[in-house]
Amino acid sequence: MNDIDRDLLPEGLEDRLPATTPAATRVTRAILDAMDGHGYDRVQPPTIEFEKSMASRMAGVQSRRMFRFVDPASLRMMAIRSDMTVQVGRIAATGLAAAPRPLRLCYAGQVLTIKGAGLDPARERLQVGIELIGADSVAAAAEVVSVAIEALGAAGATGISVDFTLPDLVDTLAEKALPLERGQVEQVRRELDAKDAGALVAAGGAAYLPLLEAIGPFATAIERLCAFDVGGALTTRIAALREIAGRVAGKARLTLDPSERHGFEYQSWFGFTIYADGVRGALGRGGTYTILSDGDEGEPATGFSLYPDPLIDALAAAEQGRDTLFLPLGHDPEVAIRLRAIGWRTRAALALEDDAGVLGCTYWLDGTEVVRL
Amino acid sequence: MNDIDRDLLPEGLEDRLPATTPAATRVTRAILDAMDGHGYDRVQPPTIEFEKSMASRMAGVQSRRMFRFVDPASLRMMAIRSDMTVQVGRIAATGLAAAPRPLRLCYAGQVLTIKGAGLDPARERLQVGIELIGADSVAAAAEVVSVAIEALGAAGATGISVDFTLPDLVDTLAEKALPLERGQVEQVRRELDAKDAGALVAAGGAAYLPLLEAIGPFATAIERLCAFDVGGALTTRIAALREIAGRVAGKARLTLDPSERHGFEYQSWFGFTIYADGVRGALGRGGTYTILSDGDEGEPATGFSLYPDPLIDALAAAEQGRDTLFLPLGHDPEVAIRLRAIGWRTRAALALEDDAGVLGCTYWLDGTEVVRL
Repeated sequence: MNDIDRDLLPEGLEDRLPATTPAATRVTRAILDAMDGHGYDRVQPPTIEFEKSMASRMAGVQSRRMFRFVDPASLRMMAIRSDMTVQVGRIAATGLAAAPRPLRLCYAGQVLTIKGAGLDPARERLQVGIELIGADSVAAAAEVVSVAIEALGAAGATGISVDFTLPDLVDTLAEKALPLERGQVEQVRRELDAKDAGALVAAGGAAYLPLLEAIGPFATAIERLCAFDVGGALTTRIAALREIAGRVAGKARLTLDPSERHGFEYQSWFGFTIYADGVRGALGRGGTYTILSDGDEGEPATGFSLYPDPLIDALAAAEQGRDTLFLPLGHDPEVAIRLRAIGWRTRAALALEDDAGVLGCTYWLDGTEVVRL
Repeated sequence: MNDIDRDLLPEGLEDRLPATTPAATRVTRAILDAMDGHGYDRVQPPTIEFEKSMASRMAGVQSRRMFRFVDPASLRMMAIRSDMTVQVGRIAATGLAAAPRPLRLCYAGQVLTIKGAGLDPARERLQVGIELIGADSVAAAAEVVSVAIEALGAAGATGISVDFTLPDLVDTLAEKALPLERGQVEQVRRELDAKDAGALVAAGGAAYLPLLEAIGPFATAIERLCAFDVGGALTTRIAALREIAGRVAGKARLTLDPSERHGFEYQSWFGFTIYADGVRGALGRGGTYTILSDGDEGEPATGFSLYPDPLIDALAAAEQGRDTLFLPLGHDPEVAIRLRAIGWRTRAALALEDDAGVLGCTYWLDGTEVVRL
């Protein structure tokens, strides 16, 4: 019992304490309610599953990032979920395979990875999102971007900005307009993603250089992309982006980075990243993708995932303490019930020495009167 | 990709699908709000921790029931939580060690065990509860029982009944009134718990037989317990039970089973089990206990844990489908925003072939008019 380490939490795992949990609860509920308001039905998959079913449903999901262990019951390998999108894909392809399409599903839950991402040491995060299954059209993409913006706004995010990308841009161009050797595609994609003009030329992608100029505020960047697309290989893509942008105009600041690829490993033609003021890094990502299934080509889908923890922390830091009403010993419980019913939060004395101020109360019940402390 | 097993979930792990998730969300929120209304601050511990810190904080928590694995980062043994009470105890003893007492904390989250309990195969459950730390007085117990009843009532439970017990009853009697040999205590406790009169006598506990009559509706059972307690060893216990019962009278049906011990491995003088109509088995348990800590006697605490999944299933089975408003192609998005703002749930057409009825909608937007389908 004297092990000093006993109380330490593992690296990258933390308690949310009362200073930030009210914001966490409020943000999660607001996002879920916004998604529900657009007709997305919630699903709640288990925290752990067979590793196999989490690793095989979507391109780009790596089981080596998951906590894995042998199930003592089945003796098969299990994993803690690192991404709920994969689980929702499984549900759509199995339990809800017969449900009409498009199928609108949403979710919220904790996801874990054995290592933090980049500079962020966090190994557990809250993930909240929607999947629109059976559609990856422009209308689907526009709805999904729009719900993402609305959900974050309802949660209290301000200064929301959305960065559009075309995850299969290089593949499309290489096939239709600017041929590349097979081995070059991946390298050109990587150097564009890294925005490294020199390396891009060295990789044989000189023709792709103008893409590095088609980056920035949407209105100007899309014009540059249009000017670059002389052969018309991107005509439908560009029209689609304009339509999505029109749908959310005025609700968020829009930017374009057509060759951004990092974080869009399983997206198809459309991807977006979402940001808000006062929050470092992206709050989430989304786009179109394919749910893999047995024996056929899979099913198109569009969705987003938000990771609201940094927003919760930012909102919690800015917020006021909550009012709490102290109920002294011998108070009338019926009065307390009536006050709670109209929204008062109460904290009752259990002993004579319980002190209203020490217990964090800001009001005091004097008979039937509420008195400011 | 042709592995038929890929889609199967492990035994005891399930998806909650749209038929029951609205009830799950509503029940969880209602319980959290009731606990918050009584001044309990939420904490959110991580899903996994070092096995050591989860196993050593409370008597009766068995790490062999947890999913365990080696943390690739620290190379130390970790476990998925099987009981959030232990985590809240850790928080109270470490991060919130300096916070004033009594400290009121609440929580909600998923807990997992490698085997289901009894006949229930479920290996993952929702756990929601409160811990009142720094007090195990009669007033503390009365508040905790009262919040448990109110929280379940707010969640939609009806016909709530509460069964009181005295977890350390045999120890108290053996010490003060009806001596037992050291080796007999555990056996007498077990036979009383099993309500086996013959085995109880055989175990040398004949003097304890009248306890098997002090079981049933609170008013009569407490009188029998009182009549049995001729030496007065239980005087304060009996007065305490009467006081708690008085506090919640009229809010729940009360019963007494003073020698019930199963499920109260870490409780001290007081324990209770809570039930509701239409739900098989207990919905939760609570009582007084001690949070173990380094170098001192630990800290007294009172709390309860609810496992609302069966209540959620019962409520979901009884509930009506929800109204959803179909937004046809070309609808005015501003009208849709206004309708959502006053509580309408909408589902938008993405293509001409999208059909309101097929998509589960009950209303249709005709211009600015809402029309029943």
